[in-house]
Amino acid sequence: MDNKGNIERLQKIAKLIRYFILISTTEAGSGHPTSSLSATDLMTGLLFGDIFRFDTENVRHPNNDRLIFSKGHASPLFYSLWAAAGKLTEEKLLTLRKFGSPLEGHPTVDFPYVEASTGSLGQGLPIGLGMALNAKYLDKLPYKTYVLLGDSEMSEGSQWEALQIAAHYKLDNLIGILDVNRLGQRGETMYGRNLIAYEKRISSFGWETAVIDGHNFEEIMAAYERIPKLIGRPLMIIAGTIKGKGVSFLEDRNGWHGKALSKEQLKQALEEFGEIDKSVRGQIPGPEDMKPGKYIPQKNEVFSYAIDKPFATRKAYGNALVRIFPQFPNMVVLDAEVSNSTYSEIFKEKYPERFFEMYIAEQNMAGTALGLSCRGKIPFISTFAAFWTRAFDQIRMSQYSRVNIKFVGSHAGVSIGEDGPSQMGLEDIAMFRTVLDSVVLYPSDAISTDKLVEKAAKHDGIVYIRTTRKSTPILYSEHEEFTIGGSKVLRRSDSDLFGVIAAGVTLFEALRAYEELKKEGIFIRVIDLYSIKPIDKTTLHEAAGETDALITVEDHFSEGGIGEAVRSVMEGLEIPLYSLAVRKIPKSGKPEELLDYEEISSSAIVKIIKELL
Amino acid sequence: MDNKGNIERLQKIAKLIRYFILISTTEAGSGHPTSSLSATDLMTGLLFGDIFRFDTENVRHPNNDRLIFSKGHASPLFYSLWAAAGKLTEEKLLTLRKFGSPLEGHPTVDFPYVEASTGSLGQGLPIGLGMALNAKYLDKLPYKTYVLLGDSEMSEGSQWEALQIAAHYKLDNLIGILDVNRLGQRGETMYGRNLIAYEKRISSFGWETAVIDGHNFEEIMAAYERIPKLIGRPLMIIAGTIKGKGVSFLEDRNGWHGKALSKEQLKQALEEFGEIDKSVRGQIPGPEDMKPGKYIPQKNEVFSYAIDKPFATRKAYGNALVRIFPQFPNMVVLDAEVSNSTYSEIFKEKYPERFFEMYIAEQNMAGTALGLSCRGKIPFISTFAAFWTRAFDQIRMSQYSRVNIKFVGSHAGVSIGEDGPSQMGLEDIAMFRTVLDSVVLYPSDAISTDKLVEKAAKHDGIVYIRTTRKSTPILYSEHEEFTIGGSKVLRRSDSDLFGVIAAGVTLFEALRAYEELKKEGIFIRVIDLYSIKPIDKTTLHEAAGETDALITVEDHFSEGGIGEAVRSVMEGLEIPLYSLAVRKIPKSGKPEELLDYEEISSSAIVKIIKELL
Repeated sequence: MDNKGNIERLQKIAKLIRYFILISTTEAGSGHPTSSLSATDLMTGLLFGDIFRFDTENVRHPNNDRLIFSKGHASPLFYSLWAAAGKLTEEKLLTLRKFGSPLEGHPTVDFPYVEASTGSLGQGLPIGLGMALNAKYLDKLPYKTYVLLGDSEMSEGSQWEALQIAAHYKLDNLIGILDVNRLGQRGETMYGRNLIAYEKRISSFGWETAVIDGHNFEEIMAAYERIPKLIGRPLMIIAGTIKGKGVSFLEDRNGWHGKALSKEQLKQALEEFGEIDKSVRGQIPGPEDMKPGKYIPQKNEVFSYAIDKPFATRKAYGNALVRIFPQFPNMVVLDAEVSNSTYSEIFKEKYPERFFEMYIAEQNMAGTALGLSCRGKIPFISTFAAFWTRAFDQIRMSQYSRVNIKFVGSHAGVSIGEDGPSQMGLEDIAMFRTVLDSVVLYPSDAISTDKLVEKAAKHDGIVYIRTTRKSTPILYSEHEEFTIGGSKVLRRSDSDLFGVIAAGVTLFEALRAYEELKKEGIFIRVIDLYSIKPIDKTTLHEAAGETDALITVEDHFSEGGIGEAVRSVMEGLEIPLYSLAVRKIPKSGKPEELLDYEEISSSAIVKIIKELL
Repeated sequence: MDNKGNIERLQKIAKLIRYFILISTTEAGSGHPTSSLSATDLMTGLLFGDIFRFDTENVRHPNNDRLIFSKGHASPLFYSLWAAAGKLTEEKLLTLRKFGSPLEGHPTVDFPYVEASTGSLGQGLPIGLGMALNAKYLDKLPYKTYVLLGDSEMSEGSQWEALQIAAHYKLDNLIGILDVNRLGQRGETMYGRNLIAYEKRISSFGWETAVIDGHNFEEIMAAYERIPKLIGRPLMIIAGTIKGKGVSFLEDRNGWHGKALSKEQLKQALEEFGEIDKSVRGQIPGPEDMKPGKYIPQKNEVFSYAIDKPFATRKAYGNALVRIFPQFPNMVVLDAEVSNSTYSEIFKEKYPERFFEMYIAEQNMAGTALGLSCRGKIPFISTFAAFWTRAFDQIRMSQYSRVNIKFVGSHAGVSIGEDGPSQMGLEDIAMFRTVLDSVVLYPSDAISTDKLVEKAAKHDGIVYIRTTRKSTPILYSEHEEFTIGGSKVLRRSDSDLFGVIAAGVTLFEALRAYEELKKEGIFIRVIDLYSIKPIDKTTLHEAAGETDALITVEDHFSEGGIGEAVRSVMEGLEIPLYSLAVRKIPKSGKPEELLDYEEISSSAIVKIIKELL
């Protein structure tokens, strides 16, 4: 087909897509038609202009190009694209935003063409970065990753994290398409129509840029045609567009964000459209038939831990990564510039090609891991427990993409000591517990860490592993088994008066309290609650039945932590419960001083037990 | 003094400061001497080169220049600067990192010269932005705000949020000093010694830049001398430095991050220093004697809500801001580009000069609010409840600065409906509950919202207010009183079988369940738990004593929410407790469909009660 004919065909498809956008949002009675209309020509050119490669019969084809709507609110456009590709009927399109329909208000993975659920702005580029990283360095496949971005969301810092790191990793298979439609939700964006403001900033971050008119198919296609020629740099297409493009009374007007047309307005809009060829369908050529490269890790021996030699769980984490990799060759390890503290560096040193330095940019690291997980990898990603709070929005969103990511937080609690409160993870358990179906593990010694890292790798889903800075004694033998949802009763007798439930550093405080109380003939049950979520209800209920009261002890704020986790499974049960937790603003000091100050040390346990006697 | 004499004096002071840094960290046995040494000359020039204005006898002087160490780990330098200013003895300096000393591992406000606690990287610039915004637009004072930044932390997206917004607000009173010492914690940074990489990026964001040798006092002072001439643009001084500068075996060496010298190494280092004049002290000239401008808001009438007219709490929030402003003239309102959804726009329209658009950059918004709070303002800052997760690290850190910030999250829970899970705040209560001494409020109707916004303004500390998208019926009369830590018993009888505890949208479900059960002669107590933290233990214990079981119902994930908050005050009490909460991944749909789907609707309440009967 000649260029002119091609453009006429694209215009015809774009008109159909605009029609789909308008009818589906009006039927829904809500949604974002104007944000969809501005990007319609850009996406039509990409999908149906012989650029995008996708096996529409096999959404799981490893070499399909990837398309992520970072501006997730343009979901009506996304669904309409697939309708125009013949993969969705008009009838189905009209279920938009209805309960039970996979066509949700913002894209979710319930719709099979969605790579990752979006809708929280500024998250698409990090996800795309993960997919592009996978193609270039892991699977070694020629697929491209496209991310549609809104201009408003460029104010999110996560975008700039991704921009710098994509350039750093020379991702010439990553293409951003920036829909500069001038208007945000409540008015003009920071830079309005100033395309050069974006161009200057993005190119300074090491990207190729193409500044175009986002409604001119010749310019659009010319920009896309630069893609095969990219060498070592990602491309950002910066497109000037009109919000509401195609409908005179919507175009470039403030006050129309996130509003559907009434039936009357829809009629008026469609009259402007004139004739619509509802039979036209766009063609998407298939991808190359390539399979991902396989990586064969070396076989490694088991690490052994001497029973009399304390060892930090964070270091056991690094060892475990190396040990289990041959068993889980899809593993990949990421760290936010603290690999010598989290000890992911042990893995890095052995398998540098499976380790990615993500620098101090936790949001992007979480998003990148999400992208890698979508491409079948098992990312283990680590930073200080405290700094995972930086990525809570990405963590929250990742559950909606049903991902398989292992988050690891080191330097948990006040027991880190001298560095002070800014470095202490004291809300990480609460945060990761809120994620539906998450697993939260908190091993106390090197052996349980080793075993639980393996269980985490085996488990398909979101896992959080909390590790400790200081060395802790070895508690378990190498033959001990640990399960997700399990616990260990370390001390028990027929005359236990109280059950003390702890994990991590406080477990050793509980054991110390046991010894002290035993001298006075007082027996307590000591439970290692290494799996905080899911939680071992059976063992806890048993302890509730066989003691007078339960006491939880944790190096974490009281809210949302171990104490509340234990309480939450006491539903209907009548047992007194007491929680020792961090309740004062911590300071710098020696770990022991801080455990005492926060009343989570062995002496605090002894004290409360004596009060309860 | 001539230039040469001045520089010799600065060199002498810098040597003393380097001495202080080394002895204090060696005494502590930990800390970050090398990160301190790289910035020593930059900070010596600033404080003692006749640039910085500060009344050392009055740290609260409103026109003191502000200095924030965004690279908080350089705290030994910060303390040593004040020692060199004569405000701290060498003896006191040696308490660094010891329990009880105000000289913590990372700066906290326990040391009076610290403006805001830092240590989580990438947070200083947003804080400085808040202080500079205050000087330029609110207090109208000539003080300058200086922020010392590390090169590693430039990879944090929050930096770029602050860079763009500082330029947008033309903050020519904000000066960043970027200490490019090449080495991060575990190795080289992304750009190493490439000062131009920083210069290109930062200037593209609209800042003036000065690229200098950070150990050459002539260049340092020349850069500072540009400050008075800034017009409408902030300045970033990009300084090439040497990590560990001044000690041959530390200079530019990897592996020395966060490590103190041994006593032997210290001796060796001090030998290199030669003679140190311990009597030299730096002088800091005082600030201008100006008082902050006063802002007199107009008097506004009370809004009234018709008992028969449902009204959204988010809108009542906007009205309340306008109503209470005359009473709290230090109020300032910020929003992240959703003011037409959170309804902070009601305030913006009335008092545009007290409203700041923060665009979609929640991290920077939280940091800016912290800076404003440090300067005596009462920031009310709003976005969707879901998107506060984006700023959890900033929220977490703000408690360590003892701030006075009111966070407001709209669009809470699945009841937002069609927009789907990405927009639903389902972990916000859990998140804000983890903050020590925080207040978490969740009003159900317009009247309680109005009253509680006023209580929030009166309360000195961190408050979170959760608002609802859809309109809800008016429950209360205008004379009703609401208190932080209170609750309302809306239905009670002498024969209540169960206590149902709810807040926000689920309160209306509980009331509906009450009506339904009443028809069958079953009475339940209905409690409006509008203050989730602190929580009304008395009323809850009373309900526990007078009913057979308590049931919580919440539009929030079960972890860390209302159910767990209620359980946490049942310490020692024996009452069965059941929680209805969001336990499945939500979808798009009508609010009622979703409340039913998640089993938090009136029919779910009726169902559980009938099961328990």
